[in-house]
Amino acid sequence: MKIIRFIHEGNTSYGVLEGDNVAVLSGQPFDSINKSGQVLPLDSVSVLAPVAPSKLVCVGLNYTLHAKESGVAVPAEPMLFMCAPSAIIADGEEIVLDSQTQRVDFEAEIGIVVGKTARNVAAGDAAKHILGYTCANDVSNRDLQRADGQFTRAKSFDTYKPVGPCIETDLDADNVDIKLWQNGELRQSSNTSDMIFPIARIFEFVSSIMTLLPGDLIITGTPSGVGPMKSGDEIVVEIEKIGRLRNTVA
Amino acid sequence: MKIIRFIHEGNTSYGVLEGDNVAVLSGQPFDSINKSGQVLPLDSVSVLAPVAPSKLVCVGLNYTLHAKESGVAVPAEPMLFMCAPSAIIADGEEIVLDSQTQRVDFEAEIGIVVGKTARNVAAGDAAKHILGYTCANDVSNRDLQRADGQFTRAKSFDTYKPVGPCIETDLDADNVDIKLWQNGELRQSSNTSDMIFPIARIFEFVSSIMTLLPGDLIITGTPSGVGPMKSGDEIVVEIEKIGRLRNTVA
Repeated sequence: MKIIRFIHEGNTSYGVLEGDNVAVLSGQPFDSINKSGQVLPLDSVSVLAPVAPSKLVCVGLNYTLHAKESGVAVPAEPMLFMCAPSAIIADGEEIVLDSQTQRVDFEAEIGIVVGKTARNVAAGDAAKHILGYTCANDVSNRDLQRADGQFTRAKSFDTYKPVGPCIETDLDADNVDIKLWQNGELRQSSNTSDMIFPIARIFEFVSSIMTLLPGDLIITGTPSGVGPMKSGDEIVVEIEKIGRLRNTVA
Repeated sequence: MKIIRFIHEGNTSYGVLEGDNVAVLSGQPFDSINKSGQVLPLDSVSVLAPVAPSKLVCVGLNYTLHAKESGVAVPAEPMLFMCAPSAIIADGEEIVLDSQTQRVDFEAEIGIVVGKTARNVAAGDAAKHILGYTCANDVSNRDLQRADGQFTRAKSFDTYKPVGPCIETDLDADNVDIKLWQNGELRQSSNTSDMIFPIARIFEFVSSIMTLLPGDLIITGTPSGVGPMKSGDEIVVEIEKIGRLRNTVA
């Protein structure tokens, strides 16, 4: 099932994609999925980022080849940092570069959407606390990232976290192709089976630190092939069975 | 004026302290302060952390002496990171250490509570976007902080961000004494005039990166004198004209 969040006639709702239509949900999709009975044509709604998280947790260096291209050792544990939820934009919105002279990279990632409040959840129980998965682009000012040491500033500029277009609830997220195209050219192509820490281990690790709340988002690292963007670029993140997240650079 | 957030008979509200009473506000205090007319005895309410921020932004190394005791150079710009808002606890709540063997430190800090949505705000206009100031304890697992490089994990464990007890709206926040007592012994004693980056500069810098929303919290770094806590400790952060934030270690 594919869940979207959208605005229709001024109201923000969640819905389930059904072909070219959206079955509108009553309330949020976290406790249970309740269809209201209302069905809208997809082209009549404005699709939002599928979550508005209370926190946006990020994992660094979670693909072996990307750790190698970054020139750093493979970490023994997931390497966490956080970004501002205010950086999130939806499918179709524009990425606005903070600098025209510094290097700002794309990074295709699969995102975990938390379904139920989670604290100290064992890997084997992670799936029960996950609503589903989405595509993300962890846009990063590489110059600031190197200069600051801390990754927060480099990755928290407004518009630097495209997320979407939907939450796929039925997915073996540890074995899907993940790709990124820049102006139609394939730049990243991997499979989540190459992740150093699989989804359940990441979830266990994060929940051993902090209480995860429904709608929180964990983005899980990028494969090799990251590169710089420039004004006018079209960036498409595609994850098998989830869909395509398309954004242009202003 | 001192603003608190509290629960009374199951309802969460904001209020203004008036001696031993609380003048209950209608709605939130961000757009305007509107008293509802209801007045409650302070001892009849449960005081919460004064904010529930959409993001918790932290500044590292903002006092010269603390940079020196940490063995690092004074930064040329504010050094930012983020912590999980789920780590926030109120005055009187218990800090629960994530480890009984690793070093977990206290850090007294003054917190900026955002009043109005802010993006690219010049230092000279910062005050118009700030509701007020509060006390914070930026509890930090020093071993994990050193090991991770990124500060998020070390500082985001549940209960690691005591905040409160109130928001003081009338304050020259660049010139107030800031102190921390551990079991009655003075461990940190400074004045915010020793901050490397003053309040308005921090606000300008953060808002040049991300959109700040009403209720967001920026904690602004700790003076020298940080040290480890152990089970049973009482930690009191006191900031002149704001008040005392008291927490015990479980």
